[in-house]
Amino acid sequence: MIVVMRPEASRKNVDDVIDRVTEAGCRVHPIIGAERTVIGVIGDGTVIDRRQIGRMKGVETVMPITKPYKSASRQFKPQDTVFQVGDVTIGGNELVIMAGPCAVEGRSQLIELAHACREAGAQILRGGAFKPRTSPYSFQGLAEEGLRYLAEAREATGMPVITEVMDPALVPMVCDYADILQVGARNMQNYTLLHAVGRSGHPVLLKRSMIGTTEEWLMCAEYILSHDNNRVMLCERGIRANETETRNTFDINAIPVIKQLSHLPIIADPSHATGRWEYVAPTAKAAIAAGADGLIVEVHQRPDEAWSDGRQSLKPARFAKLVKEAAAIARAVGRNVPQPEPPAHMNGSGQRPELAKSMAA
Amino acid sequence: MIVVMRPEASRKNVDDVIDRVTEAGCRVHPIIGAERTVIGVIGDGTVIDRRQIGRMKGVETVMPITKPYKSASRQFKPQDTVFQVGDVTIGGNELVIMAGPCAVEGRSQLIELAHACREAGAQILRGGAFKPRTSPYSFQGLAEEGLRYLAEAREATGMPVITEVMDPALVPMVCDYADILQVGARNMQNYTLLHAVGRSGHPVLLKRSMIGTTEEWLMCAEYILSHDNNRVMLCERGIRANETETRNTFDINAIPVIKQLSHLPIIADPSHATGRWEYVAPTAKAAIAAGADGLIVEVHQRPDEAWSDGRQSLKPARFAKLVKEAAAIARAVGRNVPQPEPPAHMNGSGQRPELAKSMAA
Amino acid sequence: MIVVMRPEASRKNVDDVIDRVTEAGCRVHPIIGAERTVIGVIGDGTVIDRRQIGRMKGVETVMPITKPYKSASRQFKPQDTVFQVGDVTIGGNELVIMAGPCAVEGRSQLIELAHACREAGAQILRGGAFKPRTSPYSFQGLAEEGLRYLAEAREATGMPVITEVMDPALVPMVCDYADILQVGARNMQNYTLLHAVGRSGHPVLLKRSMIGTTEEWLMCAEYILSHDNNRVMLCERGIRANETETRNTFDINAIPVIKQLSHLPIIADPSHATGRWEYVAPTAKAAIAAGADGLIVEVHQRPDEAWSDGRQSLKPARFAKLVKEAAAIARAVGRNVPQPEPPAHMNGSGQRPELAKSMAA
Amino acid sequence: MIVVMRPEASRKNVDDVIDRVTEAGCRVHPIIGAERTVIGVIGDGTVIDRRQIGRMKGVETVMPITKPYKSASRQFKPQDTVFQVGDVTIGGNELVIMAGPCAVEGRSQLIELAHACREAGAQILRGGAFKPRTSPYSFQGLAEEGLRYLAEAREATGMPVITEVMDPALVPMVCDYADILQVGARNMQNYTLLHAVGRSGHPVLLKRSMIGTTEEWLMCAEYILSHDNNRVMLCERGIRANETETRNTFDINAIPVIKQLSHLPIIADPSHATGRWEYVAPTAKAAIAAGADGLIVEVHQRPDEAWSDGRQSLKPARFAKLVKEAAAIARAVGRNVPQPEPPAHMNGSGQRPELAKSMAA
Repeated sequence: MIVVMRPEASRKNVDDVIDRVTEAGCRVHPIIGAERTVIGVIGDGTVIDRRQIGRMKGVETVMPITKPYKSASRQFKPQDTVFQVGDVTIGGNELVIMAGPCAVEGRSQLIELAHACREAGAQILRGGAFKPRTSPYSFQGLAEEGLRYLAEAREATGMPVITEVMDPALVPMVCDYADILQVGARNMQNYTLLHAVGRSGHPVLLKRSMIGTTEEWLMCAEYILSHDNNRVMLCERGIRANETETRNTFDINAIPVIKQLSHLPIIADPSHATGRWEYVAPTAKAAIAAGADGLIVEVHQRPDEAWSDGRQSLKPARFAKLVKEAAAIARAVGRNVPQPEPPAHMNGSGQRPELAKSMAA
Repeated sequence: MIVVMRPEASRKNVDDVIDRVTEAGCRVHPIIGAERTVIGVIGDGTVIDRRQIGRMKGVETVMPITKPYKSASRQFKPQDTVFQVGDVTIGGNELVIMAGPCAVEGRSQLIELAHACREAGAQILRGGAFKPRTSPYSFQGLAEEGLRYLAEAREATGMPVITEVMDPALVPMVCDYADILQVGARNMQNYTLLHAVGRSGHPVLLKRSMIGTTEEWLMCAEYILSHDNNRVMLCERGIRANETETRNTFDINAIPVIKQLSHLPIIADPSHATGRWEYVAPTAKAAIAAGADGLIVEVHQRPDEAWSDGRQSLKPARFAKLVKEAAAIARAVGRNVPQPEPPAHMNGSGQRPELAKSMAA
Repeated sequence: MIVVMRPEASRKNVDDVIDRVTEAGCRVHPIIGAERTVIGVIGDGTVIDRRQIGRMKGVETVMPITKPYKSASRQFKPQDTVFQVGDVTIGGNELVIMAGPCAVEGRSQLIELAHACREAGAQILRGGAFKPRTSPYSFQGLAEEGLRYLAEAREATGMPVITEVMDPALVPMVCDYADILQVGARNMQNYTLLHAVGRSGHPVLLKRSMIGTTEEWLMCAEYILSHDNNRVMLCERGIRANETETRNTFDINAIPVIKQLSHLPIIADPSHATGRWEYVAPTAKAAIAAGADGLIVEVHQRPDEAWSDGRQSLKPARFAKLVKEAAAIARAVGRNVPQPEPPAHMNGSGQRPELAKSMAA
Repeated sequence: MIVVMRPEASRKNVDDVIDRVTEAGCRVHPIIGAERTVIGVIGDGTVIDRRQIGRMKGVETVMPITKPYKSASRQFKPQDTVFQVGDVTIGGNELVIMAGPCAVEGRSQLIELAHACREAGAQILRGGAFKPRTSPYSFQGLAEEGLRYLAEAREATGMPVITEVMDPALVPMVCDYADILQVGARNMQNYTLLHAVGRSGHPVLLKRSMIGTTEEWLMCAEYILSHDNNRVMLCERGIRANETETRNTFDINAIPVIKQLSHLPIIADPSHATGRWEYVAPTAKAAIAAGADGLIVEVHQRPDEAWSDGRQSLKPARFAKLVKEAAAIARAVGRNVPQPEPPAHMNGSGQRPELAKSMAA
């Protein structure tokens, strides 16, 4: 439920409400606005009497949250969620661009590519160390070795790193190396994993499954948020439909739908959503026009030789072109794409001071 | 197959090839370029010997069309199809905006709305006189009365008119009133109707079915093109997927896919593709960013009172805002949306001279 | 609405109710039971006052039909619809088996195959004279020539004939030759065609579209029933899903669902529902176990040479085996499959007397 | 690849082949037939030279396995997989019937229901202790307490127990209590979990995801089989399609498809596949007619009060009726459903001796 306080309510009135609901075992999310305070409350509806809260001093009104997802809903928290990963802001007016290879294939490949992505305008480096593969006999990723290379690429370029985690038991290890945990589409409803990444406190990118509705997806985000881990972003990566020309079908509707139903940032993955590099740029631009808060794009030096997903990977030059085109669309909807910075080696250390802070946190 | 002539081939060489293949019962589409001529040939592959054609004078090479759709493919005709309806150009650098009510509900409703749409920036007026309804007991449209009102609205505003036709037997009557025939999603594979609209020679907008692949869709366009009716545009209006928050799922991938596979213009229908007015503007902008050649949008003075589809209809003021936003996106992808003209009554006759010509044609 | 008369209501009471609602422009379906009469009423709910009818003499209660399909619902007509086509009963305890080639390919092919099907246990002959093909350049069927061969095959074997009609304008011609009109999956929502076959008064088999819900399907049946043409059967032929090993996905749930929601007979088409002959027999048996009222099966002498759908056609010997297996399943659910009759030429005329009657009707 | 030995090959010839391929790091599955031995080999195709093996003594021919699933394919192992769980045979001519509540709700509820299921004909008891729920705020299952009750119910009735495991880290604990591990639909592609259940050596029932193709499903089975855990059965539980009258769409085609592509037993779950108890019996019978090796059915004493899935649960009396009807269908396809045994308390110990053995294994 949402407790809306009167404009003239005192700090004590607010605290009394918070005390009452936390005593009853509920979780609380107070939003202190310029004019008034609103308190989001999540918990067992049977233990708190809504009318009783409504009669407390300073309370104007109490409203139920009608959606099954609570913390994830705009009813619970009307303002957009904005958070930092290193010195990158996610969910703000500026879009975030993540890029990198499907899989980490080796140390030098990754570091070379990380520099190329950064120079083309990426702010966050993606790369898979654990790969969910349909065949147990296919390359499964470099595992911890891959994570080490990602951390090295971060050192070299100053970009925070996002990587997929599949095993709940490995969440602590992945947190040691990566700045953002990715939950893949196949694991959207892997509740054990959702609890584990929620408990980690690490920022999470939650991909939508190939079949999930937006409501099911927000319910999965709720699993993470229920651990008071609020640095969650959603990622639309295509659903499975009848089309054969593309690998998946990019559900562009999902972007404004999520923006309306939730306060969480939403990122578009045009690489998986189309499965073919020719279609990555037009759909990436479409995503931004529809309101996406960022992109995650697969880039590879030599897509033909990529160990996985080469068909959908852009070469660095094409990716650089995409970033420019994306910026034009962003401006047309009143937003911004940060311009590529000069190469990292010109910064002296190659590492931004804010990032070090984030890594220590 | 495609017959590519040498740069130095004479007019006679070209004519000889055309004669040979037409004698064999094939259809021919010659494209006379600045540098060389290319001849698209469609027909029974067994009756023409490709090697024999390849040995004719002036022929450089003969290539098969590998796609099952022939006339509709870019292999057959590499340049974009651009055509006129009245003085509106479809498929060119300038986008086309079609707008109007789901159903024609009455004379004054329609004319008032047509003026409002035009003033907001629409160039073509849409409105249904024959409505495909799931229930035989629902309002089925005003039929010929509705067509008359559409023709009156055209007189009043100078906008060409598009309307759906469902009955092959009524195609001639609908052609008497409307400038563009719409084939609805449910009738995409109604081959009898496709033949009828193909034979009519009238411009056609072919909606994709809720389940059709892009290949099936282009095969349906091929039915129309097979009657040498080349003024065909495609319209993506949403597919059926699992999402419940929107009525359909807008397949944004289809836009670049069609642009790659075919030379036909593609129009986006964000109204049906989302089914909710809140999502019309963001998805319309996405469509333009992805490369759509135009929009078809449902607009209604009082959506709450609309006889059908009120849930997805924009009010004129919101539509005007959308046209402005669409123009910004169009510029960001190097295209243009024509600006609203001053109200028609300022033009004297209220009818553009070119339109009269088109109506006579 | 449903008007339930009291057990003691007189014939005059019933007639008075019928007069009242027909005067108001409604359609009426009275069911005179042993104990009491129930009157189904369909029409504009605003013109009849339900309470007023409820106060009429002999009326026990008046109930609304809550489903959007009226005539097609079990609420409107609780008993199963059973009807005759020639001397074949459809919808009764005995299942009906329809078989034949996908397309009529020639006179002798068809007649030979018709005899083989009949000897294997088929009671109705199927065969396409008008084929809905994805390509306008593929074989489109023998048209009226094919219809003539079907009529000849009926003469030769005594089996009634079912064939698809696609063009509303050709319904009268197809009725001249065929005993049952088939509306194909692509035309399920071709309302012009539904009206035309409804008006014809001919028995109709309405296939479900690859994407239609059971409710949409029953709404399409309602279009036909709204013309007081009650000899309608439904046919489940597979929906489009993700599977690639089969051509379509047989929605077996639809069979008990339709049995619960409607009184219309339901036929299973395991040939299209699987698209591969290996899977026809197991799914045909499944359909019967689930409650289907019959089967329609593609059979061909030489599937490898079939002009269409050879991949899913059974050879006559396999079809004969399927009929025997189907009979075993039918008995296990308390129903029956008629046993193959001795070859038709042993009957003297080769034509059953009842069929002549049906053809005259 | 498959190495087919000559009929006259010696034991030593066979051993030599096995040694050669195991030395190369491959897994081997030898099938010693009456007439000849066939050796299935799985491993990195690049390290073994197929032609070299083909020249070894006693080898008749070497064939590649063309399917991406190797151990799971019929090419690799042509005979049906049959295995024991306690004294219940799975995959044989006799069908297996599993039944029980969706969730274990309490000790007495479970034991009472287990007796009722057994008396009605069930051979294996199902019940969820860990429930995958869309909301983190819904009942998540009784966890280890629920497992204890399941083990008690096994003691009381002699029925082996199947239950879902979601957390790879809990596999050992679940193995301590349960006879069969269930991998749920949402976890079909949870590769970490598949590896964990594979390594456990425990029998596994692998449900198909709501969107998975049969090939993707068999690839997931391959993950389990790759740990030499061969006691795997597949379970079709409905896919997600457009229908709204049922919760899911039962893909009946999948049953004969799996039987053709794989040697693994396939079980049908008509409860989840329909989501409504009214449709459980007809679809269960359909599954058996199509070739399923067994059923898993949700049964509850008071479905209206069930903590989850009450809408699809049968009461014990209806379940008993279903077992009888299923037996009739089984006989019609030449198979058998074991008849209910007299109540367990008549057996003295309430535990079958073979079960003790299985538990010790």
